[in-house]
Amino acid sequence: MPEKDLQQLSINTIRFLAVDAVQKANSGHPGMPMGCAPIAYRLYTKFMKHNPANRNWLNRDRFILSAGHGSMLLYSILHLCGYKISMDDLKNFRQFGSITPGHPEFGLAPGVETTTGPLGQGFANAVGMAIAQEYLGSLFNKQDVQILDHFIYGICSDGDLMEGISHEAASLAGHLKLGKIILFYDDNGITIDGKTSLAFSEDVKKRFEAYNWQVLNVDDVNDLSQIDRAVEEGQKETNRPTLIITKTHIGFGSPNKQDTSSAHGSPLGEEEVKLAKKSLHWDENKFFYIPDEVADHFSIMKSTFTNYENEWNKFFETYKKKYPAEAEQFVKVFNNEFGDEWKNALPAFTKYGENVPTRNASGSVINAIAKHLPTLIGGSADLEPSNNTYIKESAKFSAENRNGRNFHFGIREHGMGGILNGMALYGGVIPYGGTFMVFSDYMRPSIRLASLSGVRPIYVFTHDSVGLGEDGPTHQPIEHLASLRAIPKVVVIRPADANETVEAWKVAIEHKASPVALALTRQKVPVLDRTKFFSSENLVKGAYILVQSENNPEVILMASGSEVSLAVEAYNALQSEGINARVVSFPSWELFEAQSDEYKESVLPKLIKARISIEAGVKQGWEKYLGDYGKAISIEKFGASAPYEVLFNEYGFTKEAVVQKVKSLISKLKKV
Amino acid sequence: MPEKDLQQLSINTIRFLAVDAVQKANSGHPGMPMGCAPIAYRLYTKFMKHNPANRNWLNRDRFILSAGHGSMLLYSILHLCGYKISMDDLKNFRQFGSITPGHPEFGLAPGVETTTGPLGQGFANAVGMAIAQEYLGSLFNKQDVQILDHFIYGICSDGDLMEGISHEAASLAGHLKLGKIILFYDDNGITIDGKTSLAFSEDVKKRFEAYNWQVLNVDDVNDLSQIDRAVEEGQKETNRPTLIITKTHIGFGSPNKQDTSSAHGSPLGEEEVKLAKKSLHWDENKFFYIPDEVADHFSIMKSTFTNYENEWNKFFETYKKKYPAEAEQFVKVFNNEFGDEWKNALPAFTKYGENVPTRNASGSVINAIAKHLPTLIGGSADLEPSNNTYIKESAKFSAENRNGRNFHFGIREHGMGGILNGMALYGGVIPYGGTFMVFSDYMRPSIRLASLSGVRPIYVFTHDSVGLGEDGPTHQPIEHLASLRAIPKVVVIRPADANETVEAWKVAIEHKASPVALALTRQKVPVLDRTKFFSSENLVKGAYILVQSENNPEVILMASGSEVSLAVEAYNALQSEGINARVVSFPSWELFEAQSDEYKESVLPKLIKARISIEAGVKQGWEKYLGDYGKAISIEKFGASAPYEVLFNEYGFTKEAVVQKVKSLISKLKKV
Repeated sequence: MPEKDLQQLSINTIRFLAVDAVQKANSGHPGMPMGCAPIAYRLYTKFMKHNPANRNWLNRDRFILSAGHGSMLLYSILHLCGYKISMDDLKNFRQFGSITPGHPEFGLAPGVETTTGPLGQGFANAVGMAIAQEYLGSLFNKQDVQILDHFIYGICSDGDLMEGISHEAASLAGHLKLGKIILFYDDNGITIDGKTSLAFSEDVKKRFEAYNWQVLNVDDVNDLSQIDRAVEEGQKETNRPTLIITKTHIGFGSPNKQDTSSAHGSPLGEEEVKLAKKSLHWDENKFFYIPDEVADHFSIMKSTFTNYENEWNKFFETYKKKYPAEAEQFVKVFNNEFGDEWKNALPAFTKYGENVPTRNASGSVINAIAKHLPTLIGGSADLEPSNNTYIKESAKFSAENRNGRNFHFGIREHGMGGILNGMALYGGVIPYGGTFMVFSDYMRPSIRLASLSGVRPIYVFTHDSVGLGEDGPTHQPIEHLASLRAIPKVVVIRPADANETVEAWKVAIEHKASPVALALTRQKVPVLDRTKFFSSENLVKGAYILVQSENNPEVILMASGSEVSLAVEAYNALQSEGINARVVSFPSWELFEAQSDEYKESVLPKLIKARISIEAGVKQGWEKYLGDYGKAISIEKFGASAPYEVLFNEYGFTKEAVVQKVKSLISKLKKV
Repeated sequence: MPEKDLQQLSINTIRFLAVDAVQKANSGHPGMPMGCAPIAYRLYTKFMKHNPANRNWLNRDRFILSAGHGSMLLYSILHLCGYKISMDDLKNFRQFGSITPGHPEFGLAPGVETTTGPLGQGFANAVGMAIAQEYLGSLFNKQDVQILDHFIYGICSDGDLMEGISHEAASLAGHLKLGKIILFYDDNGITIDGKTSLAFSEDVKKRFEAYNWQVLNVDDVNDLSQIDRAVEEGQKETNRPTLIITKTHIGFGSPNKQDTSSAHGSPLGEEEVKLAKKSLHWDENKFFYIPDEVADHFSIMKSTFTNYENEWNKFFETYKKKYPAEAEQFVKVFNNEFGDEWKNALPAFTKYGENVPTRNASGSVINAIAKHLPTLIGGSADLEPSNNTYIKESAKFSAENRNGRNFHFGIREHGMGGILNGMALYGGVIPYGGTFMVFSDYMRPSIRLASLSGVRPIYVFTHDSVGLGEDGPTHQPIEHLASLRAIPKVVVIRPADANETVEAWKVAIEHKASPVALALTRQKVPVLDRTKFFSSENLVKGAYILVQSENNPEVILMASGSEVSLAVEAYNALQSEGINARVVSFPSWELFEAQSDEYKESVLPKLIKARISIEAGVKQGWEKYLGDYGKAISIEKFGASAPYEVLFNEYGFTKEAVVQKVKSLISKLKKV
């Protein structure tokens, strides 16, 4: 069969695998795969160095389907290439327990590099992967052996480009001159509402040139020579990321739906499937059909794919010989093996009573462990002096210096979130990012996706309550602890003092499967006297008895973060009045919930009904620890602009108010 | 005094009012006001038609300080112009209870048009205000009398332009040709981290031209003639919004801090304040000083200000005579007076048992009331066919048709959120916006600010649970009800069926002081038989007894949204087994919390300890209604891609599972 025909046949195979799967699921997005099949075909068979037999080959080219609704495009080409996605998997598209869900999910089908669907996220992930490659390259590549040297390809849609996160990520990618990125923009002129022109008329080329991107055009996606030329130009350009604006036809081949929004998010319908097959000279009676020629074509390619990795393996053997220490470390960082030295380097704060904002303690920890964790890299969304995220022994990561460990993400929280995810997905690095906790809202969709993807960026959220003071309610988190805790799997830790902050970072580094969010104070909090109190090492259990009366406690004071020292003050006052109390430091619900029932009962015995929670935020969810009789000292309205001492006073966070609440609760309970 | 000198003196007065206030508060941002004082001075005294004596004059030019950290710039110029901000208010900058908080808050100081600080929000607000003006203009302006005809000015910063929301809003503003917008970009080259060039090197001019904006340059902010020329060109350009890139010097006049990040977010320090005053020929021993000439200058201007409004008032008198009906309505819409006809038009769903997705019911309500609420306008972030947000009797709002009531916001949830806020702040319109509930995360910072500002956009969040099915976990809200409920003042309503959806919209229209978020199903839910059940009008109470056994109930089933009909099924099954139960439809925590203790006790009597909550999301916060013995049927992990019936089964949302849970709970309680 002439090469051109075979190409066409392969592309149509991708199209109709997608069409059939969507039709069978009776749900999904057929139009995008029909339009973009030539791009996927060309990338996966001609340009991308990958090995379907080993999804984890470290130097593989990455492919990001930012337009995640076109998932069947990805599943189809992965299946054809020989990734472990069976024909049954394709037939189980969008069914419970399948590896082929409606939108690609990292960790299910092999070859899916990230979870996409929420638009713009994949775009930012690509930027994060490029950054990770550059940084790890700076550590491990040698003049003579570049062991990390690959591209990051992808397809994005109108929606990706409309979303603000794409602006943030693209602007930073251009600034950082991330030349390894080559993204196709699926310019199909159609969105769910109708024509893209209903809401979108910006000059995309000009916009991306303004970001310092190379912008190329493919006028007809079905002309493979145009795709080839564009990719080649993208590969050649090492100083700028490349966007390839590609004219496509959504639902290509569907006589009644091509170029309309009805091809976007619904099955074509049985009749239209037939018509589409007819129009592309496909047997209308065949479903999930792979012509033999196409099967052979991909089968033959397997050795090419294997060779890509084999060549690299040989290359890596050479590297190993010449640079044995680097080679060993290279493998280790990708296996998350960091040894124990970093733990020994963790600081201890022994000046008990000294006032140390936990954000400062966090900065100390970062700088103490950085030496021993060379792939711990991160930064801040332009709040570095406030977040204390700078690694002082290193420089800033920039276009000129890929070895810098400090990232100036700019005032781009959402971009930072998506980029951190890309870094984490790439592997080898431990990425962290800081901002004020209130602005966790700006990056929330990325936090959610990190959790869903099972990767672990570390968030350094400082200024974690009204305790930040004068900046006022626009900057004061109230609902943020609750809303972060609400996201499944996210581990939120709000340490009480400097030593708990050390332990929180320890948990964050050792935790691997979901994001860890640290909630840290702007204001000073005393270092708790561990000669009198139980050890901060208990932080890992999420909640622990910090201190208690010798006699059986009548009341439990539970607090997190900066409110723990207030609980201790109240405890002391209660003691002096002969009221027996227990203070529970409660830095993390998620860690506490992971403990045994016995442990939980030991910290919060059912019999002690008098319980007070103290946390400068909404009480939502504390009820489960308070029980029917407990009372929350919380904030149920927005904050205010004032010095923080004034605010804590106004909002009822004083020793006196706590003591009074305890007494009134105890006396009420006596009446019950 | 020569005019130039007076101008300079006035500008320096603004600068040092800001500097002194920040110094006195010992906290704040002096650099921005020092740099941008000439812009504020020129706008407020030469260009803006406003009247300090009446902050609510409807045709005033608006000014948006998107760079909200420069609040003292705004407070200073407002004070000088004669707005009710006293010298004491300036001295109370950032103090508890003052009207001059750290960042400007709508509703406190007069002349503050919106709450800013979280970057990018003000930018989007400006776009929303321009839209509101255009739409209301289309209703009320006449060929001969344009009663709404003003500009929307503002100042934005590097941070605003880095934030993704500015991209979304700017792209849409250019698309919609909103020529009334004239924004200065404070190009001072400095951010918190240091030089802007650390993270930002995009070509702003090119970028905004790509959005179809007019982009002008002011090379020296201290050259007022350049400012004048730019504003005049901005006013002339009616087809494009205008961005004026203005070279400024952060901390202008401070010898040691000008053009450095140390002028950004901290007081200059007493010594440096002196030096700055010296360098600008200011008496270093004077604080909060307004030279007599400046006071006189502004005093003289008062009549000009008053005249602006007086002229318009005359103009409006003419209008009233020629167009009495329109004039009456014009006043009414700005007073939120809509009469009762819309209520009479509310549909009733009487085909009990029929399956109607609540998103469809919502679409019916919108279309039923639209005729009677001519300023109800809204749309969707490119999910109109899914959100059912289209007003069929109207057209789309566009550059060509300002009278369209349907908005294609594009795939720009955050932009939509900020734009809705701007529309709501402008007044006169009731704005609504739709997207999938999971994407409420993308617009969360705007939702928070709406609530903080006390304005009421209506959010149409459809696809409110795993019940959306095959699109999978990336699209399935799990934590979103909890996280929306966590935001102070936001009213979240999740109606159980079509008739509750009607009531939910009624609440949304009548509620004024904070956002209302409607959580609606994609999937079908039965219209509950109101001949057997209590009336849906009880929705306004947040929770109500839907149905109960004749005998005293042993167990309370609480449910919201699509899970209410499941609760009813379980109730029927329990009845048939002789177990007495009560079903509480629980559409809104916030509405329920506003009820009397008596009412709450009547719905959830303390004595009934056997309680089950049923809601397809995290249980966080339900604990307060469940009490120590209650059990939640909830989802504590991410969803999955599958038909929704399968998911509800897999996640334990079946009649059988509920009945079993009830029985095990009752038997357990008997043992207590």
